[in-house]
Amino acid sequence: MKIGKQTYKINSKPCIFATSSIVGPKEMQGPLANYFELHINDVFFDEKTFEKAESKMLESCIRNLLVKTGTNEQDIDVIFSGDLLNQCISSGFAIRSFDTPFLGLYGACSTFVEGLVLSSMLIESGMFKQVIASASSHFCSAERQFRLPLEHGNQKSTTAQSTATASGAALVTNRSLSDNGIHITHVTPGKIIDLGVTDISNMGAAMAPAAFNTIAQHLTDTGRDINYYDAIITGDLGTHGSDMLAELFKKEGIDITQKHKDCGVLIYDENTQDVNCGGSGCGCIASVFSGYFFNELKAKNLNKILLVATGALMSPLSSSQGESIPSIAHAVAIENEV
Amino acid sequence: MKIGKQTYKINSKPCIFATSSIVGPKEMQGPLANYFELHINDVFFDEKTFEKAESKMLESCIRNLLVKTGTNEQDIDVIFSGDLLNQCISSGFAIRSFDTPFLGLYGACSTFVEGLVLSSMLIESGMFKQVIASASSHFCSAERQFRLPLEHGNQKSTTAQSTATASGAALVTNRSLSDNGIHITHVTPGKIIDLGVTDISNMGAAMAPAAFNTIAQHLTDTGRDINYYDAIITGDLGTHGSDMLAELFKKEGIDITQKHKDCGVLIYDENTQDVNCGGSGCGCIASVFSGYFFNELKAKNLNKILLVATGALMSPLSSSQGESIPSIAHAVAIENEV
Repeated sequence: MKIGKQTYKINSKPCIFATSSIVGPKEMQGPLANYFELHINDVFFDEKTFEKAESKMLESCIRNLLVKTGTNEQDIDVIFSGDLLNQCISSGFAIRSFDTPFLGLYGACSTFVEGLVLSSMLIESGMFKQVIASASSHFCSAERQFRLPLEHGNQKSTTAQSTATASGAALVTNRSLSDNGIHITHVTPGKIIDLGVTDISNMGAAMAPAAFNTIAQHLTDTGRDINYYDAIITGDLGTHGSDMLAELFKKEGIDITQKHKDCGVLIYDENTQDVNCGGSGCGCIASVFSGYFFNELKAKNLNKILLVATGALMSPLSSSQGESIPSIAHAVAIENEV
Repeated sequence: MKIGKQTYKINSKPCIFATSSIVGPKEMQGPLANYFELHINDVFFDEKTFEKAESKMLESCIRNLLVKTGTNEQDIDVIFSGDLLNQCISSGFAIRSFDTPFLGLYGACSTFVEGLVLSSMLIESGMFKQVIASASSHFCSAERQFRLPLEHGNQKSTTAQSTATASGAALVTNRSLSDNGIHITHVTPGKIIDLGVTDISNMGAAMAPAAFNTIAQHLTDTGRDINYYDAIITGDLGTHGSDMLAELFKKEGIDITQKHKDCGVLIYDENTQDVNCGGSGCGCIASVFSGYFFNELKAKNLNKILLVATGALMSPLSSSQGESIPSIAHAVAIENEV
């Protein structure tokens, strides 16, 4: 049911029944290491290229989700996935190994939540019973595609973020099939916001206005204030973008700092790990939600969260043609039924 | 309602209320010229780059759809779009000009029908009332990204297809809002099929098995035989891929040749236009459906069609790494209610 301008209440409250996460060695040196289910010790993951390694991570992540829930891949109605690589090859090659229909998404780093938005709305339709939403990224494949080959050893801008080597996947189910009390209750698909930022080393600044727009619209549509939620979780604004988001809310008279968490800030230790403004990449929010926050929901340390993924919809080519960075943010409200 | 293994009957029968199409100069020299609504005389469309031209085509196509149906962009629940460019910049930059939520898709040339699948299922959910499904491609931007810059003047393989410079968009509505009798009645989202074809100049061969798989599954699930449909329309197998599809059905004892039409074959005149095996690209089926076939449905020259879009989920990088071409096909049944 549509409420307000841009938000949908999901009456059937689909369940996020289980999640799976896999990360690389650098993420295992970060503060959330204990929460990730799988990890690789080498960024090549026994493959010859970074791209094949990324694809294998995503495949392993989804396979793990199926195995641990005892779910047959043929019983999954559809797998949603996307990634940052040109033509989303990480997803295409990972998912060809499953005997499951596939719907490919491109939302840059907003992909995982875009998948949750579609999964919950399609389960609400009654047609889908269980769906997987997933996404991945890999530091090394992203660096050489978007920036410069690692071998160059270039210095990073202080506002830059570091693409996480990570995949995450969530099994979303109709509650008649399986239910653990963790439900998607509302979704707010975002609009593209572009305030003219052109610095591709400052994605946080480009994406913060999109996050603000979607969160503010969600709160207006639902009639909630930020205190309704135990946490408002973005992925990934980094430290600089998070400051900008706080500033935007401050102008509206709202202090979001006590509620706001950013997956890009959480995944690394900014004091000991060389990541400038924090993590980014489709796999960052996918793995941090699937690893850390899902665990916090299960443990009832958090009971009501708004999960907001932000994506920067540029390419190296659009930037070289002088274009700014169009950004988007999609939100899902996830609540423990007490 | 799910019927069979992979097909969904859309009980509410969402309406394809209107479509819009725009093509380039070469497509205007082809046999379907009179059916396209808008065209550009110059591939640059008054922009400085092919990519900006492609984005402007898509924007113009969607704008035209809104204007001619008298629809406010704020009343559209979501725009689905995708394209072939890295990070789908054609779509991202086109849709930032609309005050409408956006969900980005990546399905290569299957994108337009992936959008119709999602549009109709989400309207069935009752949450969305009117949605736009769209896609675009541009010969010049695709050539330099996937193959070689046009300036090289390279010779093409005889099995190559020529990316169409084209965009198409469809307005899909809940019938309570508007209804012209043209309805989406069933959808069959596809699985990724990869039989090991590695020749990127022979996409038809890579995609024909995916088209076969989805069409055959659709017929099994619905209990229909091919004679139920007035036409089974693929986009885009080209002449070579169409022959392969016919061969695959022949092995099952089915002659599909009388029913099968391929948008890549239809869009150009193979005798007078230098396109080898025909057209391809996300915009080909999007524009040929939106221009030609939608008109045939309105005129009741066709009353029951199965629209099947095929996508090759490779990238130049995956091919250079020795990978084969994973392919997918999504199908929607579109029927005139007599």
